[in-house]
Amino acid sequence: MNLRMDVPVEKWAEQVRAGDIGAISRAISAVESRSPASEKLLQILFPATGNAYQIGITGAPGTGKSTLVDCLTGLYRDEKQTVGILAVDPSSPFTGGAILGDRVRMQSHAADPEVYVRSIATRGHLGGLAEAVGDAALLLDAAGKDIILIETVGVGQSEVDVARLADCNVVVLMPGQGDQIQNLKAGVMEIGDIFVLNKSDYEGAAHYEQQIRATLELAPDRNGWKPPLVCTVATENKGIEDLKRNINIFRERFSDAPGRELREIGRWKERILRALQARLMERAMHVLGANELDALAVEIAARKKDPSSAIDEIIARVLP
Amino acid sequence: MNLRMDVPVEKWAEQVRAGDIGAISRAISAVESRSPASEKLLQILFPATGNAYQIGITGAPGTGKSTLVDCLTGLYRDEKQTVGILAVDPSSPFTGGAILGDRVRMQSHAADPEVYVRSIATRGHLGGLAEAVGDAALLLDAAGKDIILIETVGVGQSEVDVARLADCNVVVLMPGQGDQIQNLKAGVMEIGDIFVLNKSDYEGAAHYEQQIRATLELAPDRNGWKPPLVCTVATENKGIEDLKRNINIFRERFSDAPGRELREIGRWKERILRALQARLMERAMHVLGANELDALAVEIAARKKDPSSAIDEIIARVLP
Repeated sequence: MNLRMDVPVEKWAEQVRAGDIGAISRAISAVESRSPASEKLLQILFPATGNAYQIGITGAPGTGKSTLVDCLTGLYRDEKQTVGILAVDPSSPFTGGAILGDRVRMQSHAADPEVYVRSIATRGHLGGLAEAVGDAALLLDAAGKDIILIETVGVGQSEVDVARLADCNVVVLMPGQGDQIQNLKAGVMEIGDIFVLNKSDYEGAAHYEQQIRATLELAPDRNGWKPPLVCTVATENKGIEDLKRNINIFRERFSDAPGRELREIGRWKERILRALQARLMERAMHVLGANELDALAVEIAARKKDPSSAIDEIIARVLP
Repeated sequence: MNLRMDVPVEKWAEQVRAGDIGAISRAISAVESRSPASEKLLQILFPATGNAYQIGITGAPGTGKSTLVDCLTGLYRDEKQTVGILAVDPSSPFTGGAILGDRVRMQSHAADPEVYVRSIATRGHLGGLAEAVGDAALLLDAAGKDIILIETVGVGQSEVDVARLADCNVVVLMPGQGDQIQNLKAGVMEIGDIFVLNKSDYEGAAHYEQQIRATLELAPDRNGWKPPLVCTVATENKGIEDLKRNINIFRERFSDAPGRELREIGRWKERILRALQARLMERAMHVLGANELDALAVEIAARKKDPSSAIDEIIARVLP
């Protein structure tokens, strides 16, 4: 039943390295549940990572991200590149939220052993989602995938955290959603290296395109990169070559430059801090317990204890 | 120069209790910078808190929050209630971001010693804003203010955290901003106890009002409370009585009920967890140091060290 216990971790790591789909799937499950074995596994596999190129595909539900991911996968497969897909969007056909027609369509690479598709549940620990997705990407990287596509909705902090893990972030928009321009300004703009206007054959798309271009004009220059806008009609496979070309330009632009290294170092710093925070809070809650937290809050609300003394007491116990 | 050092904390606390404006201002500054004296001060004053009613006024820049705050203050002063105003909105006239005309207008209570106005800077520590605002509100509470108005923009997590501190949350909208309906759905809806459509004399306001009402209809029932919508024209002082009446209804509705206590206990739990997280991360960064964090990230990016070993090492040092 528990296959993980039957295989020594070293053997399991070897299977992942060899691209064994069952081993990879069990490894990602272990990472999702943060089992002790998964840590050991990641430690063994870590030196074998750093070769895959991670592309984030972020956009509101209904923008057609999954179809874009599907089309991009086809183009990378034409070049014999191996692809791993991680879907964090709860409305994604990969994660089973969409209508049947979509789900069937997304099976187009199901028979291809060089395309690994996996959904990552959004349920779970504080900030743990980005950690789980980051670790799953490391596993696919170690398994030899050349390209890793990470599909996210990009609302909420945890999704933005996920998107920031990628080497290149593609933000997908569609015409006729005024609030998307707002989102663009609010925070998604900062994470987008490339913008896509999908469903660009819709009525009024030209007007919308202009709005986006105007907004992008205002984007701060990042190491000399101005995020381009690519118009696509993913359902007709239109514009995908252009998108891939832009991803390649971005990749080459930052491949040798110290920019890429700085970007990766910055990402690791964020990951360390996030993991540290999660672990410290876990420890604190373990020491404290939910009942005691409740009891303290009741005492404070009744003015029987002041909050800073309460926190001092907790800190003293957690950090002796 | 450093007045805090000249006065013993007990004396300082007495001055705050007596409503001494200089002492209150220095206390809030101490709370903003989290000086050790501020903790002692809060400890002394805490038993004297719990009497003020905190009202959050949240809305996008330009919705007229500050004018509403000004009008509400006038009504409370008519009843001889003392008022404290904390402005967290960087675009608020209180904090100096608005045009001169606004700033002059907001001085309408400047000569009234029973109205204390203070801006809280949004710069600063991770999640520390909500803590600073919460502590500043405690100080005004201890200083005997009957009503505390907390003005925030309500975008971003830290502002939402601030809004959640209040006993009653008023969310301010204005006609003609489609994305506001979107925000309403996204998260502001959850924090609003009362909704205000300000500038309700604008063209198209009726249509917008209908949209909001339809959206509010879908709001989940919270302990039997359905958030009402109040139409105002703050610049003409219209609808403010109605707003105050609704705040009173909400206040009475939850004053005796265990609902209020549960709400307050829940808030203290959140505050404990937030403070705990901030303190633990502070301690960790103190042990680790920014240079070492940088060095670790560089090592990880170069695959010389794996991230989980790095985190284990840090945890072992922070939590011996």
